Amino acid sequence: MSWELHHVDVVIAGSPKPESVPVSWLKPGTTIINCSSDLLSGRQSLNNTTENAVCSLAVAIRMQNMVKNTERWIHSQQLRKWDLHCLKLQPLSPVPSDIEISRAQSPKAVDVLAKEIGLLTDEIEIYGQTKAKVRLSLLERLKDQPDGKYVLVAGITPTPLGEGKSTVTIGLVQALTAHLKINSFACLRQPSQGPTFGVKGGAAGGGYAQVIPMEEFNLHLTGDIHAITAANNLLAAAIDARILHENTQSDKALYNRLVPVVKGVRGFSSIQLARLRRLGINKTDPETLTEEEISRFVRLDIDPSTITWQRVVDTNDRFLRKITIGQANTEKGFVRQAQFDIAVASEIMAILALTTSLEDMKERLGKIVVANDKKGEPVTAEDLGVTGALAVLMKDAIKPTLMQTLEGTPVFVHAGPFANIAHGNSSILADKIALKLVGEKGFVVTEAGFGADIGMEKFFNIKCRASGLVPSVVVLVATVRALKMHGGGPSVSAGAPLKKEYTEENLQLVADGCCNLQKQIQIAQLFGVPVVVALNVFKTDSPAEVDLVCKIAKQSGAFDAVPCNHWSDGGRGAVKLAQAVEKAANQKSSFKYLYSLELPIAEKIKTIAQKVYGAQDIELSPAAQSQIDRYTRQGFGKLPICMAKTHLSLSHQPEKKGVPTGFILPISDVRASIGAGFIYPLVGTMSTMPGLPTRPCFYDIDLDPVTEEVKGLF
Amino acid sequence: MSWELHHVDVVIAGSPKPESVPVSWLKPGTTIINCSSDLLSGRQSLNNTTENAVCSLAVAIRMQNMVKNTERWIHSQQLRKWDLHCLKLQPLSPVPSDIEISRAQSPKAVDVLAKEIGLLTDEIEIYGQTKAKVRLSLLERLKDQPDGKYVLVAGITPTPLGEGKSTVTIGLVQALTAHLKINSFACLRQPSQGPTFGVKGGAAGGGYAQVIPMEEFNLHLTGDIHAITAANNLLAAAIDARILHENTQSDKALYNRLVPVVKGVRGFSSIQLARLRRLGINKTDPETLTEEEISRFVRLDIDPSTITWQRVVDTNDRFLRKITIGQANTEKGFVRQAQFDIAVASEIMAILALTTSLEDMKERLGKIVVANDKKGEPVTAEDLGVTGALAVLMKDAIKPTLMQTLEGTPVFVHAGPFANIAHGNSSILADKIALKLVGEKGFVVTEAGFGADIGMEKFFNIKCRASGLVPSVVVLVATVRALKMHGGGPSVSAGAPLKKEYTEENLQLVADGCCNLQKQIQIAQLFGVPVVVALNVFKTDSPAEVDLVCKIAKQSGAFDAVPCNHWSDGGRGAVKLAQAVEKAANQKSSFKYLYSLELPIAEKIKTIAQKVYGAQDIELSPAAQSQIDRYTRQGFGKLPICMAKTHLSLSHQPEKKGVPTGFILPISDVRASIGAGFIYPLVGTMSTMPGLPTRPCFYDIDLDPVTEEVKGLF
Repeated sequence: MSWELHHVDVVIAGSPKPESVPVSWLKPGTTIINCSSDLLSGRQSLNNTTENAVCSLAVAIRMQNMVKNTERWIHSQQLRKWDLHCLKLQPLSPVPSDIEISRAQSPKAVDVLAKEIGLLTDEIEIYGQTKAKVRLSLLERLKDQPDGKYVLVAGITPTPLGEGKSTVTIGLVQALTAHLKINSFACLRQPSQGPTFGVKGGAAGGGYAQVIPMEEFNLHLTGDIHAITAANNLLAAAIDARILHENTQSDKALYNRLVPVVKGVRGFSSIQLARLRRLGINKTDPETLTEEEISRFVRLDIDPSTITWQRVVDTNDRFLRKITIGQANTEKGFVRQAQFDIAVASEIMAILALTTSLEDMKERLGKIVVANDKKGEPVTAEDLGVTGALAVLMKDAIKPTLMQTLEGTPVFVHAGPFANIAHGNSSILADKIALKLVGEKGFVVTEAGFGADIGMEKFFNIKCRASGLVPSVVVLVATVRALKMHGGGPSVSAGAPLKKEYTEENLQLVADGCCNLQKQIQIAQLFGVPVVVALNVFKTDSPAEVDLVCKIAKQSGAFDAVPCNHWSDGGRGAVKLAQAVEKAANQKSSFKYLYSLELPIAEKIKTIAQKVYGAQDIELSPAAQSQIDRYTRQGFGKLPICMAKTHLSLSHQPEKKGVPTGFILPISDVRASIGAGFIYPLVGTMSTMPGLPTRPCFYDIDLDPVTEEVKGLF
Repeated sequence: MSWELHHVDVVIAGSPKPESVPVSWLKPGTTIINCSSDLLSGRQSLNNTTENAVCSLAVAIRMQNMVKNTERWIHSQQLRKWDLHCLKLQPLSPVPSDIEISRAQSPKAVDVLAKEIGLLTDEIEIYGQTKAKVRLSLLERLKDQPDGKYVLVAGITPTPLGEGKSTVTIGLVQALTAHLKINSFACLRQPSQGPTFGVKGGAAGGGYAQVIPMEEFNLHLTGDIHAITAANNLLAAAIDARILHENTQSDKALYNRLVPVVKGVRGFSSIQLARLRRLGINKTDPETLTEEEISRFVRLDIDPSTITWQRVVDTNDRFLRKITIGQANTEKGFVRQAQFDIAVASEIMAILALTTSLEDMKERLGKIVVANDKKGEPVTAEDLGVTGALAVLMKDAIKPTLMQTLEGTPVFVHAGPFANIAHGNSSILADKIALKLVGEKGFVVTEAGFGADIGMEKFFNIKCRASGLVPSVVVLVATVRALKMHGGGPSVSAGAPLKKEYTEENLQLVADGCCNLQKQIQIAQLFGVPVVVALNVFKTDSPAEVDLVCKIAKQSGAFDAVPCNHWSDGGRGAVKLAQAVEKAANQKSSFKYLYSLELPIAEKIKTIAQKVYGAQDIELSPAAQSQIDRYTRQGFGKLPICMAKTHLSLSHQPEKKGVPTGFILPISDVRASIGAGFIYPLVGTMSTMPGLPTRPCFYDIDLDPVTEEVKGLF
C-alpha cells in the first residue's frame, strides 16, 4: 500500500515520550496494526502506550481503513467499464509529421491513466511523467478474473515500406476505447534504437494513431533493451574469460580460486552446489572432492569453435559484423573470430518476450546454451554460474511499460525480439496483464512482426503455446499498394518514388494481387481463428479499389473486411474495424496448433513449409541435418520451430510475389535458442546487424537546449 | 505545475454543451486562465461560456491559486532548515553485510524526500519508489539564492583496498543532517556495472553509511551509463560507416545521398548548413555548389590510423581490449584494429560530469575530436552530423538522480568518469543543484576519486575551473592501515589476508607513514583550502594509534583531525567530524588554482609533477612531445591538464610508498578530450577495460524469484 499519511506519533516501548515514526512501521507484525479497524480494539491491544499515542494511532488506523476501502472499491471496479478520460483529437489536413502530432497532444499523467484502468498504487513504478512499469503481482491479484478477448494484428506479405500493422493496432484500440467505450489495450514491441538513428523507422504507429510521447517510446523507454544488452554481454564476457582462465591454470589453481578460503573457511556457493549436483557429485565439503571430481568441477572445456553466443549493441554498427577478439597481450594469444548483433537479436530478448514469471525467466536464462564442450555436450549459462546475475540485471525489464495512445487509451510496450531468428512478438506478460485489466468484455490487441506467414504462425505455434492463451480474432492488414505489387506491379523500394501503378487506379493489379491476401486468410484459418481484413487506406486508393479488396477478402473466407482511416483520422477512422472485430470475437473460435511438438524437427519444418508457405518440400543442407541430429541427441527435439525466412515473399525468394508454388525450401542451417525455447532453421542468410546508410536519419535529429524538445525524429 | 485537479467542464467555442477538458488546457495562452485569481475577472474575460462552465472554472482557478500559494510557500522555505524526517538506525554488532543493512531499512518514498528538501512537484521525475531525476530548471528558480558550503572529500594515497572516502562522504552527511540538523547533501559518482559483477566493489558507501537501496545504486540506476554507451557507440559507428561510404562512392554519389531530393526539393539540413559555414562556403542552395565545394563538403577524409574514438560496453570484457573490426565481406576489406573501453571511460561520461547546462553539453558533444583528417586537422562529432542525436540520447542523463542515505538524508548520484584518463569527480550539475537546495548555511559534500594528489588536484584545477564554484573545506580521509603501509609495512593486496603489522598496534609504522598524510595536507594547502583529516577507524586500530595520527595531522597543518566510526555506527559515528567540518567552513578560504591555463602544455604538466607529486622534473617521450605540438597547433593548448597516473603512489611507480622524491616523471603519450575540455598525459599505460577474474563476484549474486530480493551483492 502507498500511504497518504507518512508519520504518526507513538510511544515506543521503553521510550519516555512519543516519537514520530513512519506509518510503515505500523504494518502487520506490530501489535498496534493488528488491532483491526476501530480505536477501541486498537487501545485494547496496546501496551506501553499513552492516551496521546492512541489518539494519534486512531488517525493512522482511520487512514489505513480509508485506503483499504478504496482498494476494495478499485478491486470491485475491475470488471466494469473504465471511466477513462479520453484525449480529444482534432486531426489536421495534410497530416503533420509524427513527432509534430505527438508533441501537439498533452498526455495524461501516467499515474492518472493507471488509476483509470484499475491499477493499484503499489502495482506501478513511475518512470517520469508518461511511463510506468507494472508489477507482475497484479496477475496474482486478478487471477480469478476471466480474460478479455485476445486479438492478433498480422499482415499480408508486405512491401519493403511496411503496410501499417502498428498503426492499425493503435487505431483499433483508439476506436474501441475512445469511440465505442469498450475497454481495450494495445500491446506493442519496443523498437531498437539502432534503426531510430539509422534508417527512418520508428514503431510507435504513425499519423493520428500513435503512442505518445513518441520520442520516449523510440528512445531509452524504461531501459529494458539496455538491461538485455548488459545481461547478454556479461554472459559473453564470462565465456571468453572462463576459457582463458581454464587454459592458463592447473586444476588445483582453478579450484583454489573458484572455491577460496574465506576467513579460514572454504565453501561452495549455491550456484556451485547446483553444478556439483548436475555433475552427479553429491558432496558439499570442498575438502572431500577427489582429483578427478575437482577436474570435472573446474573445467567446462568449452570448444571455442562452437560458441554461438554473440555480443550485442543497440546501434547499427556494421563494422562489428565480423571481428577478431582477444588480440591484446593480456589474452595470451587466445584470439577468435566473433561478431556483434543488434541488441534486440539477443536470445535474452526472446526470453523476455516468452517468459511467464520471474521464476520462469530465471530458469530460461540458466538454460541458455552458449557452446558445446569438447565432448559435444551443451554448455549453459548455468554452468558458467551467471544465472543469478542475469536475473538480477533483468529484474525490472520483466515488468511491462505502460504508455498511452494519442487518444489517452492504455498501451503496453514490452520486448521486441527479431522476427526472423526469433519470433517477433511482444511479451506474453504484457498480454496476460492486459487481458486481466480489460476484463471479460474487453479487448487486448497485440501485433506480430512481418507477414502472417511468419509473425502469425510463430504467434500461434510458439507464443500461444508458451502462454496457453487462446486468440479470438486475427486482424489481417492489407494495403492496395502491396496487393498491386503482388498482382505484378513494379518493384517498390525504400527511398525511391512510387511508380504510377501505385498512385493511379488499377483494378486489374489489385484483383490479381488479392491471391496473397487470400492465402494469408487461409493460413489463419488453418489455426481455426476468424479473420477480419483491415484495409489500410491511402489517399491515392480509389473507392473502386477499396471495394474490390473488401469484396474479394470476404469471398476468400474473411469474417469481414473493412477500410480504415485511422492514420488521418485517429480512432474515428477505425470504428468500423472495431465493430467488425467485436462481432468476430463473438464467433466460435476453434483454435488449434499447426503441428505437434512430438514430431521430429524436420517434420515440423516441413509442415510449416508446406502448409503455410506453400512449398512442395524442404531441402536440408548437410550442416542443417547434422545440427538437427545434434539437437535431437541433446534432448532439444521437442521444441517448437521458429523459421528465419524473408518476410518479402511467402517463399524464400524475396522477389517472388503473390503466391509462389512448387518451390523447394532450402534450409541452410539450423540453430537453437534453448532458453527462449525454440529451434530456428535458417532459410538463407539473416543479417543480425544493420548498418548506417550514407545519410543516416541522425542528420535530422536535434535537441532544442532551451525547450528540451526533440526535433526531426520521423 | 502539477495539478491536483485533472479535468473541468467548460464550454468550448462553437460547442453546444459543457465538455470535460484537462485542466492543462487552461494554461497561459487561453483567455480563461489569464483572468488572474478571482471568479469575477474570470467571468469578464470569458466569451462563449455559460454560467455552468464559469462555476466549474471557479473550482479550477481556486485550485490553481492554492497550488500557486503552496508553491510560494515552498519557495519561501528554501532558505530554512529542512523539516526532514530522518530514518532511525539501530546498528548491529558485528556489522552485517552491506546488502543486509540496506535491505533492513525502509527508504522513504522519493517524492516525500523531494518535498522535504524543497523540490517542487514539477522539478522531479520519479523512477520507481526510491529514485528521481531532478530537472535543471531548479537552477533558474533559485538562481538568486546564495550557495551552501562546498566540501570535498579526498584521501591519502590508498592501499589497493581503498580507505573509505565514499563511506566518509555518506557518514558526514548523515551526521550533519540527521544528528546536527544542518541541511546537507552528498554528491556521489555512479558506479560502473562492470566491477559490480567482476571484482567485489560497489560505491554506495558501506556498513551503516550507505546509499539505499544499494542494489538500485549499483545496477542500472536511471540509465545514465546506458545512455552514454548508446551515444558513444552511435558516434563510433558513424565514424567507420562514413569512412566506408567515402571510400566506395564518388563525390557526386555521396552528394546525392547526403543531400537527396525529397518530394522534388533538395535542401541542406541545419547540421549540414553549419558544416558549410565551417568550411567557409556561404551557400544555402544545394544546386549552386561547385565541384570543388561539393568535394570538400562530402569528404571528411578521416585518416583511420588517427582514430582515437573507441567503442564502449559497461561490462568487464577483457577480450575486447584489442580487436580487429570490419572483417565481414560487406565492409569490403576496410578492416582496422580497434578496442572497447568500459563505458565510464567514455569522454561522454567526462562531458556529463563537467557540463553546466543542456546547451553547454550539446556544444561539448559537438566539439569531441574523434580523429584527424589526412591533412592533420581534427575531425569532430559535429563534422559527422551527430551532435543533435548525441544530445537527444543524453537528454535525460543530464538530470542528477536523487536517492537517500540509510538515515533518510538526500544524495545525488550523477556521472562517474574514470579517475586516470578522466577527472574522476561526480557532476558539476549535481553539486550546483545541491548547493542551492541546502541553502546558505547548508553543506554539500562531494567526493574525488583516488588520492588527493590526483582526484583533489583535478577537482580544483579542472572541475572547479569549469564550474566557477569555490570549495570551503577539504576532508582528507586516512586509515591507520594505509599509513602503516606508507611507513614501511608489508604490501597489501586484495584477496590476501592482512599481515599482523596491520592487525596489531605498531606506533612506529604509523608515525613513519604519516609523511604521506602530511604531504597530502600540504597539497590541499597549495590551493588555499582548510583541511580536516577524517581518520576512518577500524576495529583493529589501537587508541594510541588513533591519537598519534590525529596529533601528527594537526601538527602538519590540518585545521582538525577526527576519528570516525560511521561504518559501524552510522551518522552518530561522524558527528565530531561534522562539527569540525562546520568550524573549518567558517575559516577564511583563499582558494586559488595551481597553474594558469595560459602556460604551455608542458609547463602545466611540469607544475603538477613538481608541486603536487614531488617530482624533480618530467620527461616527455617523442610521441608525447609530438602530440603536444599537434594539440598546440590545433588550438587546444589552453586546456587544463588531466594526469593519467597510478593512484597507488605519489610517483608513477605504484610500489613507491610514503613520499617519493627526486624522481623524473615519464610522460609516455599525451591525448586529449576536447569535448570534456582537457589534455591527458599518460604516465605509463592505463587499462581502460577491466577483466573478469577466475571467480567473478557474480558467483554469489542471485535473485529470489518470489520476494524479488537481490542476494549476494557485496
